[in-house]
Amino acid sequence: MVLAIAESERVRGITSPNPPVGCVILDESGKAAGFGGTQPVGGPHAEVMALKEAGVKAQGGTAVVTLEPCSHYGRTPPCTEALIEAGIKHVIHAVSDPNPRAAGGADRLAKAGITVESGLLATEVSRGPLRAWLHYMRTGRPHVTWKYAASLDGRIAASDGTSQWISSETSRKEVHEMRAKLDAIIVGTGTVRKDDPALTARDADGMPLPRQPLPVVVGMSDLPVGAKLQDTALHLRTHHPDDVLTALVEQGVVDVLLEGGPTLAGAFWRAGRIDRVLAYIAPALLGDGPAAVLGAGVSTITDAVRLTVQDVTMSGPDVRISAVPEN
Amino acid sequence: MVLAIAESERVRGITSPNPPVGCVILDESGKAAGFGGTQPVGGPHAEVMALKEAGVKAQGGTAVVTLEPCSHYGRTPPCTEALIEAGIKHVIHAVSDPNPRAAGGADRLAKAGITVESGLLATEVSRGPLRAWLHYMRTGRPHVTWKYAASLDGRIAASDGTSQWISSETSRKEVHEMRAKLDAIIVGTGTVRKDDPALTARDADGMPLPRQPLPVVVGMSDLPVGAKLQDTALHLRTHHPDDVLTALVEQGVVDVLLEGGPTLAGAFWRAGRIDRVLAYIAPALLGDGPAAVLGAGVSTITDAVRLTVQDVTMSGPDVRISAVPEN
Repeated sequence: MVLAIAESERVRGITSPNPPVGCVILDESGKAAGFGGTQPVGGPHAEVMALKEAGVKAQGGTAVVTLEPCSHYGRTPPCTEALIEAGIKHVIHAVSDPNPRAAGGADRLAKAGITVESGLLATEVSRGPLRAWLHYMRTGRPHVTWKYAASLDGRIAASDGTSQWISSETSRKEVHEMRAKLDAIIVGTGTVRKDDPALTARDADGMPLPRQPLPVVVGMSDLPVGAKLQDTALHLRTHHPDDVLTALVEQGVVDVLLEGGPTLAGAFWRAGRIDRVLAYIAPALLGDGPAAVLGAGVSTITDAVRLTVQDVTMSGPDVRISAVPEN
Repeated sequence: MVLAIAESERVRGITSPNPPVGCVILDESGKAAGFGGTQPVGGPHAEVMALKEAGVKAQGGTAVVTLEPCSHYGRTPPCTEALIEAGIKHVIHAVSDPNPRAAGGADRLAKAGITVESGLLATEVSRGPLRAWLHYMRTGRPHVTWKYAASLDGRIAASDGTSQWISSETSRKEVHEMRAKLDAIIVGTGTVRKDDPALTARDADGMPLPRQPLPVVVGMSDLPVGAKLQDTALHLRTHHPDDVLTALVEQGVVDVLLEGGPTLAGAFWRAGRIDRVLAYIAPALLGDGPAAVLGAGVSTITDAVRLTVQDVTMSGPDVRISAVPEN
């Protein structure tokens, strides 16, 4: 399953609105014979890719897959039929398919005499590569990760407005790699005026990475003439997060990074539309300057938005905290 | 040495201005025969305590000690002579004594035919139980740890001023245990007016722990009548951190916790008088309210006070970050 998760990570960012699934086919003796990840919409699913690589070695073998194989005719034939035809005897999947149209895959396989086991590394998969898609299936809304970089005392810029760079080169590189795996990045018109960002995913030499997310600008005002995002971004003239998310669903967007300033972040918090926080805390003090979020709808301590920390890691010298809202 | 460190931790908070040293005596076969920690000023040092417990078993044995044994006549006779008299053959210490009056212990022992080894777990000891004392020996000033609790977005209170409680019960308990190991706690008159703290170290049931630090209030204004600290605290009518630290040295204070508000923290930062930051970051968002430090003397990002993270741990649901200023 660890290898299947790696396969799914390889295709994360190219499959939306389909889930980025990974599959490994083991031959009868348990040796890995084929690897596959979901291809872009209309292309083969992970199971079909892995079966193709395994060829006749799939006969009598096992399919290890991050998501329950689908059993419906969508843009591609059902994966259950491909597994049965290839002579697979065992299927192990991490997460059951919550999609009512595609579910029932495990039942279909069992009826064909295949043993099916589910739940292996389910937490790793549902918090990892399938996090955004599972959220989208559950709520109908794209999954929103709010990312910011702040000093230890919670400032996102110095008092003169300068902020390049609070976080380390390692953290900025990590963010660029993250961008390349996402469907869209949102900023506000204020950030465009202040920073004139390109919102592209670039490598360490500043060269664009092969896959680029959709840049989205939110706000009523026009973009400044000559802004880098003027021709590339989807400009949504609204202030309400739900208008933004509805427009993004229409674009096939499932996994979103919110990189806007404190006002936009506050609007998303008040609307309850932030599903994860990624905070890069740089070991520095500014002692003045703006904070990461403004107006989260809290006026007294008992109303604080409480989160649960899921992960704390070092990103170079910075501390990276991943947290999700408590229900 | 791990056991010697544990001995030193047991006496941390009672030895200042002497160092909290721990010692383990191993008998000739390498078995632990005696344990000891430095007693309060005028009492026996760690080596003497451990030798006393080991008795005749010390003959031909090894002394494992966190600090190089002293070789001078101060309030007590030199530990080197006690080790020699007891028939110790080997001495292993973590940190060499930087105190010019007490140093030379290793030389004295070697001249008496004892093998001496230094540097074992030196980093653990110098960042751990001897951190404050080593700083004091190097600079002549008490070691200042600035501790604060903030939300993930860097607020130490909500917009209405409420702050009880941002951090978890686990973190607050940890702070009370830390207080009991320190010589003094500093707050400003503003914090006294706002929170009326007692600055005592209490257990989970609110009962005072056996050892209590000296409460210190800094600021020009009088304490409110009836304030809990009115009769117990040392009130220093100054705004300058160096005046505070000089007064504390006179009180035999080596290890200080700064728990003041943003203004006092800012003053200590501007003066370069913070030696360690302990930040308890609670996974909560406030979106408004004061930050942990105000006016650190930084106006643009390139002037940010840069720190190095030494340790990141979870304290219940909170993230605890320990960092020290870069030189």
